[in-house]
Amino acid sequence: MLPTVRDVFEARRRLAPHLQATPLLPSHWLSSIADGQVFLKLESLNQTSSFKIRGALNAALRLIETTGAAPLPQLVTASAGNHGRALALAAERLGMACVVFTPATAPEAKKNAIRRHGAVLHECDDYDAAETQAIEYAAAEGATYISPYSHPDVIAGAGTIGLEIVEAMPAFDVVVIPLGGGGLASGMGLAIKAAAPHATIVGVEVEASSPFTLSLEAGRITQITPRSSLADGLTGNLEAGTITFPLVRQVVDYVVTVSEDDLARAMKGLATEERLIVEGAGVAATAAIMAGKASAPGQRVVAMVTGGNVDLPKWLFTIS
Amino acid sequence: MLPTVRDVFEARRRLAPHLQATPLLPSHWLSSIADGQVFLKLESLNQTSSFKIRGALNAALRLIETTGAAPLPQLVTASAGNHGRALALAAERLGMACVVFTPATAPEAKKNAIRRHGAVLHECDDYDAAETQAIEYAAAEGATYISPYSHPDVIAGAGTIGLEIVEAMPAFDVVVIPLGGGGLASGMGLAIKAAAPHATIVGVEVEASSPFTLSLEAGRITQITPRSSLADGLTGNLEAGTITFPLVRQVVDYVVTVSEDDLARAMKGLATEERLIVEGAGVAATAAIMAGKASAPGQRVVAMVTGGNVDLPKWLFTIS
Repeated sequence: MLPTVRDVFEARRRLAPHLQATPLLPSHWLSSIADGQVFLKLESLNQTSSFKIRGALNAALRLIETTGAAPLPQLVTASAGNHGRALALAAERLGMACVVFTPATAPEAKKNAIRRHGAVLHECDDYDAAETQAIEYAAAEGATYISPYSHPDVIAGAGTIGLEIVEAMPAFDVVVIPLGGGGLASGMGLAIKAAAPHATIVGVEVEASSPFTLSLEAGRITQITPRSSLADGLTGNLEAGTITFPLVRQVVDYVVTVSEDDLARAMKGLATEERLIVEGAGVAATAAIMAGKASAPGQRVVAMVTGGNVDLPKWLFTIS
Repeated sequence: MLPTVRDVFEARRRLAPHLQATPLLPSHWLSSIADGQVFLKLESLNQTSSFKIRGALNAALRLIETTGAAPLPQLVTASAGNHGRALALAAERLGMACVVFTPATAPEAKKNAIRRHGAVLHECDDYDAAETQAIEYAAAEGATYISPYSHPDVIAGAGTIGLEIVEAMPAFDVVVIPLGGGGLASGMGLAIKAAAPHATIVGVEVEASSPFTLSLEAGRITQITPRSSLADGLTGNLEAGTITFPLVRQVVDYVVTVSEDDLARAMKGLATEERLIVEGAGVAATAAIMAGKASAPGQRVVAMVTGGNVDLPKWLFTIS
């Protein structure tokens, strides 16, 4: 049951009353480094300060459409933080109960926001533990588990970003997308391979956790030992049987990795040159472009800036 | 020779190949505080990180149009920093020489950028001294003085923001605009009183320096003793005979003042809730809305976020 571009258009119709298109900002600074034209797609300025609101809200709205007269289910998820925050907001707005499992090390900016939206928060050892516990909890409680990436409605919601980019700028050459669980790249890829098939799609993993690089090479989902990273939103293993694996294999043209130094440099550049507060996962595409790994001179490039939920003292320390 | 709305449309035509419309971002955080619908007009994401690029580029382009075959003049300006940075970029791009006089206390973010664009920078005791010296220098050297506010092309360039707002959202009730020299409010007012005459225009001064409040009360330009402020871009006296005085009197419905505490609170809110780095002058409209001085419940309100050129350590200290 893989989602298709039709599901992305359905998600767009569903989300239209709730979300406005995010800015696509030309960056002279990054254009000069890339020797091309680089545009930043600013999901850090979306509601809940990340793109995750699109998928979470699409999944919750769809659930309500299909539940009919029955009581609304309790929502459960595992999340590095941004999807949890987004699902908590969606649940609050739609009058549903929500339980979120995160790593204990998730930024306070993410954990506090989850609590503020009235969700129950469980802190776990790491992302993989959070995922296991969330799935077990949902099964035991008869609640609905909404994976942060391996869920057709979450993927279709994220895909709406692809439509917005194609509409704002039909003739782009490359789009550069951070890869965590692969939901964002899967959804955007469905939209872009349909509406702008000429464009190249580059996925970016961090050296500290690169399950797609290894899994694509092996031809099957491969377990890794994730290390910690500035890009806390991108670390962790892929769920067994995740639907993002066949989708990423189909729509992403190639995957590159960036180092922690690359991430820090990109975070600093976005702060000093573009006046944006962006979290580690959110700078991965910028980092790949700065490292010369994602585009060629003269190209029109879109860099996904996926989220801004970083604790400010840590952020300032990184850019200082 | 006061500019009119026609000059604003001319400026728009002139600037169109160079500048893209800036984002108009709905803010749930500020909407909740104001009990209305608040949108942020993000000039901090414009080129040179402030709205000043519009007026500076318009003035420089117009000068080239009218100079004909004669050699291009040297540009001179006085500036709290943002207009100087913008004029330096315009001059660099168009192949003109540029000399900027700023207060020595201007943020390094502004002074460094002025130097990086190849302009000559003179640091003065305060803004009033910078203005006097710049005007004297221009007269002595036969150079062209481009006032940061009392210049028809600078005002018309800033006015293009008004057109963008009306086009993006025709039915807004209030626009809230920081008042320094009054160039921004003058230009935006020309556009908005023509295209959206139903809308209320609120100017915001800082308590530390409020020449318009006093001058409008007195019916003539009145000298003040400016104190220092987080909003370094808004402090200083009005040039004798500034054309912004009659314009502001005509287009601004009322003027309110905000305190240093109001500014700090707004700067912190924009950082933590919207993930934006905004300078003191740039948060003045947000501060007035948070203080309940600029809008009534239920209204659709546009808050100008005018610039982001603040030194990050000072900014972090303020929001901590």
